[in-house]
Amino acid sequence: MIKVGIVGGTGYTGVELLRILAVHPEVSVQCITSRSEAGMPVADMYPNLRGHFDLAFSEPDVAVLKACDLVFFATPHGVAMRMVPELMAGGVRVVDLSADFRIKDLDVWANWYGMAHESPDWAERAVYGLPEVVRDEIRQAQLVANPGCYPTAVQLGFLPLLEEGLVDASRLIADAKSGASGAGRQGKIGMLHGEIGESFKAYGASGHRHLPEIRQGLSAAAGSSVGVTFVPHLIPMIRGIEATLYAELHDPGAFDRLQSLYEARFQDEPFVDVMPFGSHPETRSVRGANQCRMALHRQENSNIVIVSSVIDNLVKGAAGQAVQNMNIMFGFRETMGLEAPALLP
Amino acid sequence: MIKVGIVGGTGYTGVELLRILAVHPEVSVQCITSRSEAGMPVADMYPNLRGHFDLAFSEPDVAVLKACDLVFFATPHGVAMRMVPELMAGGVRVVDLSADFRIKDLDVWANWYGMAHESPDWAERAVYGLPEVVRDEIRQAQLVANPGCYPTAVQLGFLPLLEEGLVDASRLIADAKSGASGAGRQGKIGMLHGEIGESFKAYGASGHRHLPEIRQGLSAAAGSSVGVTFVPHLIPMIRGIEATLYAELHDPGAFDRLQSLYEARFQDEPFVDVMPFGSHPETRSVRGANQCRMALHRQENSNIVIVSSVIDNLVKGAAGQAVQNMNIMFGFRETMGLEAPALLP
Amino acid sequence: MIKVGIVGGTGYTGVELLRILAVHPEVSVQCITSRSEAGMPVADMYPNLRGHFDLAFSEPDVAVLKACDLVFFATPHGVAMRMVPELMAGGVRVVDLSADFRIKDLDVWANWYGMAHESPDWAERAVYGLPEVVRDEIRQAQLVANPGCYPTAVQLGFLPLLEEGLVDASRLIADAKSGASGAGRQGKIGMLHGEIGESFKAYGASGHRHLPEIRQGLSAAAGSSVGVTFVPHLIPMIRGIEATLYAELHDPGAFDRLQSLYEARFQDEPFVDVMPFGSHPETRSVRGANQCRMALHRQENSNIVIVSSVIDNLVKGAAGQAVQNMNIMFGFRETMGLEAPALLP
Amino acid sequence: MIKVGIVGGTGYTGVELLRILAVHPEVSVQCITSRSEAGMPVADMYPNLRGHFDLAFSEPDVAVLKACDLVFFATPHGVAMRMVPELMAGGVRVVDLSADFRIKDLDVWANWYGMAHESPDWAERAVYGLPEVVRDEIRQAQLVANPGCYPTAVQLGFLPLLEEGLVDASRLIADAKSGASGAGRQGKIGMLHGEIGESFKAYGASGHRHLPEIRQGLSAAAGSSVGVTFVPHLIPMIRGIEATLYAELHDPGAFDRLQSLYEARFQDEPFVDVMPFGSHPETRSVRGANQCRMALHRQENSNIVIVSSVIDNLVKGAAGQAVQNMNIMFGFRETMGLEAPALLP
Repeated sequence: MIKVGIVGGTGYTGVELLRILAVHPEVSVQCITSRSEAGMPVADMYPNLRGHFDLAFSEPDVAVLKACDLVFFATPHGVAMRMVPELMAGGVRVVDLSADFRIKDLDVWANWYGMAHESPDWAERAVYGLPEVVRDEIRQAQLVANPGCYPTAVQLGFLPLLEEGLVDASRLIADAKSGASGAGRQGKIGMLHGEIGESFKAYGASGHRHLPEIRQGLSAAAGSSVGVTFVPHLIPMIRGIEATLYAELHDPGAFDRLQSLYEARFQDEPFVDVMPFGSHPETRSVRGANQCRMALHRQENSNIVIVSSVIDNLVKGAAGQAVQNMNIMFGFRETMGLEAPALLP
Repeated sequence: MIKVGIVGGTGYTGVELLRILAVHPEVSVQCITSRSEAGMPVADMYPNLRGHFDLAFSEPDVAVLKACDLVFFATPHGVAMRMVPELMAGGVRVVDLSADFRIKDLDVWANWYGMAHESPDWAERAVYGLPEVVRDEIRQAQLVANPGCYPTAVQLGFLPLLEEGLVDASRLIADAKSGASGAGRQGKIGMLHGEIGESFKAYGASGHRHLPEIRQGLSAAAGSSVGVTFVPHLIPMIRGIEATLYAELHDPGAFDRLQSLYEARFQDEPFVDVMPFGSHPETRSVRGANQCRMALHRQENSNIVIVSSVIDNLVKGAAGQAVQNMNIMFGFRETMGLEAPALLP
Repeated sequence: MIKVGIVGGTGYTGVELLRILAVHPEVSVQCITSRSEAGMPVADMYPNLRGHFDLAFSEPDVAVLKACDLVFFATPHGVAMRMVPELMAGGVRVVDLSADFRIKDLDVWANWYGMAHESPDWAERAVYGLPEVVRDEIRQAQLVANPGCYPTAVQLGFLPLLEEGLVDASRLIADAKSGASGAGRQGKIGMLHGEIGESFKAYGASGHRHLPEIRQGLSAAAGSSVGVTFVPHLIPMIRGIEATLYAELHDPGAFDRLQSLYEARFQDEPFVDVMPFGSHPETRSVRGANQCRMALHRQENSNIVIVSSVIDNLVKGAAGQAVQNMNIMFGFRETMGLEAPALLP
Repeated sequence: MIKVGIVGGTGYTGVELLRILAVHPEVSVQCITSRSEAGMPVADMYPNLRGHFDLAFSEPDVAVLKACDLVFFATPHGVAMRMVPELMAGGVRVVDLSADFRIKDLDVWANWYGMAHESPDWAERAVYGLPEVVRDEIRQAQLVANPGCYPTAVQLGFLPLLEEGLVDASRLIADAKSGASGAGRQGKIGMLHGEIGESFKAYGASGHRHLPEIRQGLSAAAGSSVGVTFVPHLIPMIRGIEATLYAELHDPGAFDRLQSLYEARFQDEPFVDVMPFGSHPETRSVRGANQCRMALHRQENSNIVIVSSVIDNLVKGAAGQAVQNMNIMFGFRETMGLEAPALLP
């Protein structure tokens, strides 16, 4: 049983962490902080938690956090980088669900996030927590940067192609679509039901913060800098990301072995499911579950590999992956607390 | 560990049973039958179950079912009543999620369901499985008639008022609303997304099959025949029922003790949550969870008690309540397999 | 061709007025005001208006408004009552879509809206603009208080019963449900897609501002004070209200003539459609149209009349009814600009 | 005033034609046929049309159709090609909303539609009715093949790039997404609300019938055969298509003139709206309107042109474009009956 703290718990990733941890047998949640809602019982804000947690939101208190074995940050960017050094010094381990420690090139980070990085040392030492790539490093890590939602779906889908050098890495296209919960829980007019219900649109098409994160991860997989175009879209639903990926095979003959390549690459991964060639993964098949489900496609006379990859943005794209990382870090069974099937329909 | 069979597993209650049983530590699912889909792996129809079940749908085989400790029927009405007697004779216990054994007056049943009842003996012996009312009888029952979705939400909401005789039982009104999954998974034009998305309507307003079931249950609680008007509506969403109930207090002064009455009535119930007076339960607060959540309201100068009661129609309104009944019947912890919080957002 | 101004045009009723007026042959929109968005082209905020209007939002300017023949107020409550007297003095006619002039008893108004009324004289002289009740007064009115959305659906549905004195007016129940656009276009967390998508709940069950307006209108129809319970609910969709109304017939024998009574009452009304007895009006059947569609129901052995009444809250419940009132006031054909069928699917 | 017949009116394109024609001043609808629903009033199936049409569905009767000036086919593929020759011989003009006459290469057609073409002469003579490309031919045409929904959004978005030869035409990618109404109104399980609500997926990713149509149109614009990858997706909403298009510029310097190129190309088009560079068209901005709205994007250091193009699949993607074609064919103002702004929100 480890002691866990959550910093910034009023958003959707915060409640999702609580939902998952409520049934995790090795975790005791010690505190969940919120400056704006301090004093409010979490179950008042999130009635699905009535009967599961007696906790109230509290002011962030470093002493309390330092008494934890693990602290999750579910904060806007800019918060974790200021608090992490002290927690690190205190020997606490951290999984940061924000973007603060995801990008290694801090000039790139500063450019996309509009502020200078205040913890460059830890930015360098942080492990980018995509278990399917760096499981062993996560095991030892004191600080894990939990990947973004789009980057998780896009990287997992492209990985085998790039690791094997099968495609033109200068011409990758990722057309991704997300439910509205990805935008968080702030009172923005643009996220009202009246604004996004029954409508669909691209956004951030000229550049989105997940682009450099995607580029970094894909370049690592490819062994050299890739060229990738990434366009996110907003789906009138709550949870789920689908990314349709396009890459050009160097050798169309390689199509014959792609399916077995993908299956082999992920055969030991508990949270990646390669469906039969030509399947169409649905986001609902992963709703509420820490799963990435994907399938490959080819159109007639084409040398373009098409990959459709789906996740629940709040689970494998955020809180679930964070718990997966925690499980790895603390030597728990990797699937602990993450076994339940997705909620379908 | 008990052996469980499911008859009629292709519908939404079938997949929901599998979703719940996938993480139930005391259950091994032996078979799931479907005449139309025999041979198809359940995970091909319901990809959320990939990795959880290797089962394929099979033709119903009484020998296989008789080897089970418990059989769930998730069939259209008219099926269970024909198969149950043989299973009863074989000592198998049954939870029937269909309507076959819910109504005690078989003329009423025949009238609403359009066929004569073929198992009148077992209709008499079946226990109507609302644990909050007849837990002890369920424990001993060989055959449990699992309540309908609307009847669960409506009965639980009215129960304390009727049991205490506080309201005019001749003038009850239940205005209920359900998500589309309540209509099952048949290819009906009226249930297409294009037909019910972004729209709301009453249906069955002149009479719905759940009306006699509601009347029977409320009459039992009141100790005499009640008068109840029940109008169901279709909400453009998938899961969830909200019932707004109206009853006239004999003595308006009784308003003062209603909240404590409700809290006392349900204080030991693991799956009924009475919220503070004046709260507004949301269906999402019970999505995927075996929970009924309710709250009381009063309008100024009025002697009308208003109760808002929510459930997930597929869980507390169907598969979850069926598993709760199973837990009671087999002496498992009543909440086993049903502990996870609702999926919110 | 009349000159029209709109005060407070950034909300959903503002854009809906523009959508309707865009094809109205007798109207020229002179200005649309917004303090917060002054200078922004309306088509930048509402791209459906690109190519239809060159207008930009402007600061409210009384001189400009006084040059109009008609001014619509689409403002929060408290605004119109301060500006109306000067416009009245200038001979401008006004249709106020806010709640400022709907309630005749100003103590009641002050109690529900939390401020003292600042224009009591005009509150007395304002005509409550439900054309199906007071068409002739609207024709002459200088100031029309456009009814609220729920009150329109509820009053039209109850009218014939109360006018004829057929029901127990002390026990009326109106269970009403609305799409999210009824809450307007402010950045409230509670109205995010992530909060209300795929969920349903009652709200304001202990008392909603439309209750006194409904009570006033129904009491006028009944000729004496009525007792009405009104519970609104939030539907996870954008447009549409359904109200299910319950009333107890004095004489159950009257059921036989209810359908013809309703048909006769509304036979000359261009915007009220009485469907065959036992029909179920869908909100989508009036989406975007200035229509109220209703049907009657009876359950076996019951003396409760059930009426289901649907409108589009933004059209017959707001902007469409306002244009209908304008048409009446200026002697245009009452259906002008309001002829198009609803958008279905 | 022309006489119009509709063959196959029970689907969503049929009701959409009626919705539009209800307010078209130059059209009188003579008949609407349906074998399965003959005798049923159209307003019983589509209550939004109550008060607008007294028509009932009728058996197809060639004599009645031959008395029309224009016949719309809103039928599944394979119907129009059998009836068209006789109507042509009778001098009737036809707009076929089905796929029967869209593809010039009849081997390709047979391959994708699974049957031999039975009217090859008329397939050759039919004009592919994309007014923005061949308006003059439409004017004279006796038979117009109304374009598919995806092909309309994709072709309009790519046109200027291909006509000017600015991009690598061998590497076009069209990632398109559609609401559920595009699948029509048949009772398919896969199109139930319970199946597609709150979920998103690709479909037809290995090949969709609109691919050859898109390829044909883009090849014509480019002047030679193009290579295009087209992946459609299903959005949990009713109306709307968004297509995100990717093409590689031969010369990145050309980015500077793309916006003016697009604006010039469509400046006289009443139904194509080029938004400012970097805008994000929303499908709701064209809901119910005969409009294609698009915008261009560029990501840093990239030579990929990104175009986002939206239409309402039932309007500019079907019935609206059909009426636009009719207007052109009969010399009516091209926008007649199509002037109303989109329904937003």
